[in-house]
Amino acid sequence: MNRRTVFFVSDQTGVTAETMGHSLLTQFDGLEFRPVTLPFISTPDKAEEAVRKINLVAQQEGVRPIVFSTLVQDDLRELVKRADGLFLDFFDAFLGPLESELAVRSSHTSGRAHSMADQTAYNWRINAVNFALANDDGAGARDYERADLILIGVSRSGKTPTCLYMALQYGVFAANFPLTDDELESGNLPATLRPYQRKLFGLTIKPERLQQIRNERRPDSRYASTQQVQYEVRAAEALFARAGVPSLETTECSIEEICSRILDRTGLERRTRP
Amino acid sequence: MNRRTVFFVSDQTGVTAETMGHSLLTQFDGLEFRPVTLPFISTPDKAEEAVRKINLVAQQEGVRPIVFSTLVQDDLRELVKRADGLFLDFFDAFLGPLESELAVRSSHTSGRAHSMADQTAYNWRINAVNFALANDDGAGARDYERADLILIGVSRSGKTPTCLYMALQYGVFAANFPLTDDELESGNLPATLRPYQRKLFGLTIKPERLQQIRNERRPDSRYASTQQVQYEVRAAEALFARAGVPSLETTECSIEEICSRILDRTGLERRTRP
Repeated sequence: MNRRTVFFVSDQTGVTAETMGHSLLTQFDGLEFRPVTLPFISTPDKAEEAVRKINLVAQQEGVRPIVFSTLVQDDLRELVKRADGLFLDFFDAFLGPLESELAVRSSHTSGRAHSMADQTAYNWRINAVNFALANDDGAGARDYERADLILIGVSRSGKTPTCLYMALQYGVFAANFPLTDDELESGNLPATLRPYQRKLFGLTIKPERLQQIRNERRPDSRYASTQQVQYEVRAAEALFARAGVPSLETTECSIEEICSRILDRTGLERRTRP
Repeated sequence: MNRRTVFFVSDQTGVTAETMGHSLLTQFDGLEFRPVTLPFISTPDKAEEAVRKINLVAQQEGVRPIVFSTLVQDDLRELVKRADGLFLDFFDAFLGPLESELAVRSSHTSGRAHSMADQTAYNWRINAVNFALANDDGAGARDYERADLILIGVSRSGKTPTCLYMALQYGVFAANFPLTDDELESGNLPATLRPYQRKLFGLTIKPERLQQIRNERRPDSRYASTQQVQYEVRAAEALFARAGVPSLETTECSIEEICSRILDRTGLERRTRP
């Protein structure tokens, strides 16, 4: 039996339970996991229903599911703990030591993380998303005064998803500017970017991977040709070096990793955290 | 002493440690936490450097920091554990019980979560982001055939950030279509949307909050007037009811919560998880 059902049970969105479960399960190779998220388990009735779902799967599959839980209310946690599964609760494990250390009892009320408790953080994120969209791809606003960061790189080097993740996850104002043939030929930073040299960060990518991505978008085009892709990547990397722009090779990086590495290298402050 | 420094130490991006720490700390009211993320602690040297940073803060502040850690390699964890802080490691707490349950030893290698191990998940996310951008605000592609979900609502009801979060977090293809005066006056679903009735989901928001948001954008405009905002919200909600479109009132919801509630209510499948 190499397949297990995994429940993510939460009194809120389930994002924390999913993140925690995902991190742990990626440590187990060769096993197959079927994920089921049960969010907003915030009453005894809903907890009982979650227990029934878990027990049903245990019975049907003949092996008990794994339950990653973030239930902060003791009574709900006790209910779900009785289900026929391996119960791993996050608050169970860590709230105790934290309470001792901080010498206070925690509120034990649900709905704190990812709630609107922090309106300021919410506003930062939304404003940062709007900023990223308005300052995407060198078009539109070019409000580089307000930018925390300006990503530059050739088309399809990952600039847009990176800017959006920066905004949603960290409330960072990230603009992006594409390096096109014009800029690459001149070998100099575009004039619009020069006043913001300190905010620039370059993204680069292996030509083979870039070609793959561009081919999906415009098959058999000049845009996706070996020659064009190799030229652009080489010219962009030369430009970064010449202009002293820090850069990152993203071929093997997830979006999370690109963002985290940029923050680490630039020392930019996170305005919000997940 | 109501202020504590909190370290998020990880051999990878630190996203899991941040998420876990944030969830726990929001349980403690009235205390102030200063967050510091130390990502990519992947060698003994870097671990020693992290220890020095933690110890320095302990010394300077006269109170030991809290350390949320996701270090999967035993040797690195043992090093950081020696720092002068309350050390809470996620793998420490949960890998043991999981290994027993699954009757296998985990790989204990870093870089699994948020790594490129899962290229398919990565492609889903990037394609979903591109889809969200191309199908934003009723303009452009309107490729509703490929949409998993089409959000409708008045301007500034939260459609765009929700679509982008759906894409980045869950790989869900979400389009959005704004309800403007034209649609609201007719009281009917726009003709372009009718064939996709099953994919529609409405976002609504309290008029006072909407007015606040619009006022930031266009102060003292008709767009942000009490009358206009009240009219639009009322008309949109009436349209949802008449057309049988499920909807969510988002005033008190974070982006995570909006997404999670929509997935919960529609039964839409998450293509990827954090």
